[in-house]
Amino acid sequence: MKAFAKIRREPGITRIDAEQPKPGNHEVLVKVRVTSVCGTDYHIYRWDEWAQAHIRPPRIIGHEFAGEIIEVAPDVSTHKVGDIVAAESHLACGRCYQCRTGNSHICERLAILGVDVDGSFAEYVKIPEQNAWPIPPEIPIQTASVLEPLGNAVHAAFAADIPGSDVCIFGCGPVGLSAVALTNVSGALSVTAIDINDYRLGLAKTMGASKVINSKAVDAVAEIRRDTDGRGAGVVLEMSGSEVAVRNAFRAVRNGGTVILFGLPSREVHLNLADDVIFKEAHVRGIVGREMFKTWYMLEGLLKSRKVDLQPLITHRMSLNQIDEAMKLVGSGECGKILLTP
Amino acid sequence: MKAFAKIRREPGITRIDAEQPKPGNHEVLVKVRVTSVCGTDYHIYRWDEWAQAHIRPPRIIGHEFAGEIIEVAPDVSTHKVGDIVAAESHLACGRCYQCRTGNSHICERLAILGVDVDGSFAEYVKIPEQNAWPIPPEIPIQTASVLEPLGNAVHAAFAADIPGSDVCIFGCGPVGLSAVALTNVSGALSVTAIDINDYRLGLAKTMGASKVINSKAVDAVAEIRRDTDGRGAGVVLEMSGSEVAVRNAFRAVRNGGTVILFGLPSREVHLNLADDVIFKEAHVRGIVGREMFKTWYMLEGLLKSRKVDLQPLITHRMSLNQIDEAMKLVGSGECGKILLTP
Amino acid sequence: MKAFAKIRREPGITRIDAEQPKPGNHEVLVKVRVTSVCGTDYHIYRWDEWAQAHIRPPRIIGHEFAGEIIEVAPDVSTHKVGDIVAAESHLACGRCYQCRTGNSHICERLAILGVDVDGSFAEYVKIPEQNAWPIPPEIPIQTASVLEPLGNAVHAAFAADIPGSDVCIFGCGPVGLSAVALTNVSGALSVTAIDINDYRLGLAKTMGASKVINSKAVDAVAEIRRDTDGRGAGVVLEMSGSEVAVRNAFRAVRNGGTVILFGLPSREVHLNLADDVIFKEAHVRGIVGREMFKTWYMLEGLLKSRKVDLQPLITHRMSLNQIDEAMKLVGSGECGKILLTP
Amino acid sequence: MKAFAKIRREPGITRIDAEQPKPGNHEVLVKVRVTSVCGTDYHIYRWDEWAQAHIRPPRIIGHEFAGEIIEVAPDVSTHKVGDIVAAESHLACGRCYQCRTGNSHICERLAILGVDVDGSFAEYVKIPEQNAWPIPPEIPIQTASVLEPLGNAVHAAFAADIPGSDVCIFGCGPVGLSAVALTNVSGALSVTAIDINDYRLGLAKTMGASKVINSKAVDAVAEIRRDTDGRGAGVVLEMSGSEVAVRNAFRAVRNGGTVILFGLPSREVHLNLADDVIFKEAHVRGIVGREMFKTWYMLEGLLKSRKVDLQPLITHRMSLNQIDEAMKLVGSGECGKILLTP
Repeated sequence: MKAFAKIRREPGITRIDAEQPKPGNHEVLVKVRVTSVCGTDYHIYRWDEWAQAHIRPPRIIGHEFAGEIIEVAPDVSTHKVGDIVAAESHLACGRCYQCRTGNSHICERLAILGVDVDGSFAEYVKIPEQNAWPIPPEIPIQTASVLEPLGNAVHAAFAADIPGSDVCIFGCGPVGLSAVALTNVSGALSVTAIDINDYRLGLAKTMGASKVINSKAVDAVAEIRRDTDGRGAGVVLEMSGSEVAVRNAFRAVRNGGTVILFGLPSREVHLNLADDVIFKEAHVRGIVGREMFKTWYMLEGLLKSRKVDLQPLITHRMSLNQIDEAMKLVGSGECGKILLTP
Repeated sequence: MKAFAKIRREPGITRIDAEQPKPGNHEVLVKVRVTSVCGTDYHIYRWDEWAQAHIRPPRIIGHEFAGEIIEVAPDVSTHKVGDIVAAESHLACGRCYQCRTGNSHICERLAILGVDVDGSFAEYVKIPEQNAWPIPPEIPIQTASVLEPLGNAVHAAFAADIPGSDVCIFGCGPVGLSAVALTNVSGALSVTAIDINDYRLGLAKTMGASKVINSKAVDAVAEIRRDTDGRGAGVVLEMSGSEVAVRNAFRAVRNGGTVILFGLPSREVHLNLADDVIFKEAHVRGIVGREMFKTWYMLEGLLKSRKVDLQPLITHRMSLNQIDEAMKLVGSGECGKILLTP
Repeated sequence: MKAFAKIRREPGITRIDAEQPKPGNHEVLVKVRVTSVCGTDYHIYRWDEWAQAHIRPPRIIGHEFAGEIIEVAPDVSTHKVGDIVAAESHLACGRCYQCRTGNSHICERLAILGVDVDGSFAEYVKIPEQNAWPIPPEIPIQTASVLEPLGNAVHAAFAADIPGSDVCIFGCGPVGLSAVALTNVSGALSVTAIDINDYRLGLAKTMGASKVINSKAVDAVAEIRRDTDGRGAGVVLEMSGSEVAVRNAFRAVRNGGTVILFGLPSREVHLNLADDVIFKEAHVRGIVGREMFKTWYMLEGLLKSRKVDLQPLITHRMSLNQIDEAMKLVGSGECGKILLTP
Repeated sequence: MKAFAKIRREPGITRIDAEQPKPGNHEVLVKVRVTSVCGTDYHIYRWDEWAQAHIRPPRIIGHEFAGEIIEVAPDVSTHKVGDIVAAESHLACGRCYQCRTGNSHICERLAILGVDVDGSFAEYVKIPEQNAWPIPPEIPIQTASVLEPLGNAVHAAFAADIPGSDVCIFGCGPVGLSAVALTNVSGALSVTAIDINDYRLGLAKTMGASKVINSKAVDAVAEIRRDTDGRGAGVVLEMSGSEVAVRNAFRAVRNGGTVILFGLPSREVHLNLADDVIFKEAHVRGIVGREMFKTWYMLEGLLKSRKVDLQPLITHRMSLNQIDEAMKLVGSGECGKILLTP
């Protein structure tokens, strides 16, 4: 089958001919219909420090996708050939403390599709049956392919008390933008989106931000304090991973407020813990992935309720063959989500 | 001054000439501009068992209002003459365990305006300075006068996890209707309103219910189970006080779900605790009043954000002199909130 | 093999010769070394209304036990022959909403060992591999056989905030007694145990109760209020199922306090929801079983830490052949836990 | 009156003759019977960066004390002359968002006794009536004088789920030692105390630590992981403020665990947020002071229950005149709490 893989320890991605995967115990084989590009894929493409530490070539990358089940292992009982499914990309061991206490998304032996095992930038991909989430016919498959980032936003935002809070979101990539849309319909009194890219701030406005701040032009923290009677925001979602943004996130939160850390800083961050966490009694929570599978039940409900419209988030549609072009677009920041068709 | 009071231990209400109240320490005197009718007022009017047990005539009743401060005690520092204010009607002692641990709304020695002390069905009413909440000029005073029931809805609904949940609301009086509007904009996947009065169910639809059920015509619990893949609702708000509704509320909630009890049953209720609470591991929470003053900060934010439109809730406007007519309307159930002008 | 079963729809229990069970997929076969008697077994023995509704004879009963694995199915990977294990008796489907969101103990299709499938009053019993919990050599097997009731206590008590709270426990059967021991070492400011049986109150004293009340002799609620400066208890654990106790539990809790319902009332209970739940803003939580498997990790830790001594709880040791005698003892209330050896 | 004050912007402390304070509105005057030395006092004594930024001489320092009320303002209603009281040293404005929502300990305009206003290293000190906590006769006044650090430990430890958790405490100063004693009796499965001073680790052992680690000699994180089957600790309390300890605290916590930050780092700290907070989904909470006044009710209950014995914590008793000597002792680390008698 056709696939795109990291085959050498250097920047770039290569088209390869790979063998079609064979589902093992409790696995299903999916024909990829739509796959989309995540920041992680771009890290691997660029071959930055994080990628160098985590990727062992050859590896077919990509992990956000939706498709059709075309084969199931004999012991699979929850899906059948022909089902349309989206995929949870976190593969849990099922046996560690975290897995056995309802937290398999932070499994002690977590593997990630397209990082630790072969992924979805290919014609076919195999996944454990429990990771395949059925998509009802009324949901367009394009929407299904971007459930993962919306799922990140659901997991991150609902870890805080959104209803009745002033919410600030640092970083307007696809997850940040999803969080804007989600918090806006979840009782936030205000949703302020902060980024340094006007294109993305424009998308944030479209997705429902009550205010956008370009923090290159304006002192975001001062502005947030002004908007909240000097108190600071009740909930801050950090979704950029930028050190400046992380520091501002902590400065922008009010006493007793909540900072959700989702964006991954590429190196250590300096923090003024005394003033920005301790004297404030801030609640800080790291968030990764999606709750398996509470988040997915919520995603299903959100799609059925039509409360969140992800269409504005999908800014580009291309062939999987144009993956180099897609990666460059991600690098420019001038895009929302890019869908690729194998 | 003109006032309406319960002066005898019998049904009805009487117009009296009362002395204008004089603010004591830390109190303000408010000229009532708009006051509205609450279910409690109707209980007192009808002189039902609850009223007989709680009211010692003579008592000026009424507790939902907004108005202008026309006098402040010398030690008042947080308000001044001319301020427009709404009122929190719960008067807390400030010294008990609850008051000293941030829960003065469940003060061990709580007094209620219009029940334990003279209320707002009058030209003037005095309240403690801390119970007067400033209303900014952009908020219409009619809206300000109905913040109390919206505050009940805020306190009740936000005691559960609304975002991502299927929500059922039993009882479509003003508080139930406010909860419909509030949960609809706070991330509920669906909001099902249940009542036995089609007029009120019509209002629920206007306020944003995704579905309404007249439980005289339909088995509400069966319907709710059908709508939730057989699981039951994640959050149930009981806002009627009807025994049948309370029992259905417990039957409608899913395993691990939350039942918020707000409506006051007039007598003891039979419950199947084994099947409806214990085997389900239901979370049950009683709710009364509003958090002092977290709920009020949220109300202020909600009004500023224009997320909740209370206009459809206000179905009638009358003179305070027409209070008898207003009470009859409340008795009929064919109304939302009735505003009275002194 | 030898087993004791309900074979007719009438009181009593019968010794039978049964076929030794054969482990199916993901199951293990355990040679029972010690099994103990639970209130549920006594309900089935007596053939009360609950038993009539839930048991379909023939059924080998019993579900609390520890033993040695003597056979494993070919696909079992987490245990091996020779392992000493205790058993979680709740059998979850693994596929419903509850199972997939970390709450398999309230699985929508829950089956219980010794109730819905054959149990442990036998020489051998088979269970799913995930329900077998390994017991390290330093833990006596007698202790291992009574982990289930201690697990109930762990799950029930830790659902409330025990540290810094005044705790009341209604009902001093084995689970109530375990809760006494557990809350006493978990930061409760005081632990008051209430029962109507002086023998069991004596055990409660031994297990660490700071005070015991025989509620036949004394007004328990008045006493509890006196001991808490009139406020009521912060946490009340209802572990008897008696209607009188349930009602007292709600009356004994303070405003804003927590009532945990664990004991199963045999029929509907009348409650004054207005005064005892709503005006108080009580938190009420139903509890059943044990969290799978967070509770078991805690049990393991508790045993290793030697914080809780379960020895005083084990009051009788008999042969499984003496099961009739054991049942009579349970009926008298003059016992703690009774261990049976097959 | 005799008092000890910082009178110049330089290291040291000076005995002065000061005017006896006069209680203002809602204030009481207390004759100091016992006062104790806190790390904050030592910061001011040394005149380190923090002190230089926060102290404006002349200032009588000291804030931990117990004494007798000898005068009350006319409007004081909750205390009377002759009452023995301990003091909450955080002075809240009563009007900001935090104060009005039950969080006055993180008041937006917080002032601290002995830092922002004159303190307790004196014969007399005045405090707001609400900050005076009555001490019953059965509590020795020496114990009453050290309720503040125990209160810090109560507030910090109970912000996490202690029952059923493995707990690590970094830093064995008086607050860390109090936390050792408290968590040990609050259901912690294990309490590991970490410091670099063997004297203090010896005290930790006496206070109930199940294990102590001198992190100069041993890799504390590796040791903690070994003790927890490789998972890490469920709850980590950081009570030292040392950068190394803060970093280790984050590395020692398990996936999904809780880090409580209480110790104040003297400058910014570098953190690996990706690995130590985000991928772990750690819960991080800053803690300062004591909850006003929930913590104090708990302190009262703890003292009455005799669960926590603070005697081993009090290692030295001196005259207030020996304050220089006391400060040197604090600097050496070879002490627990030092009590001073004016």
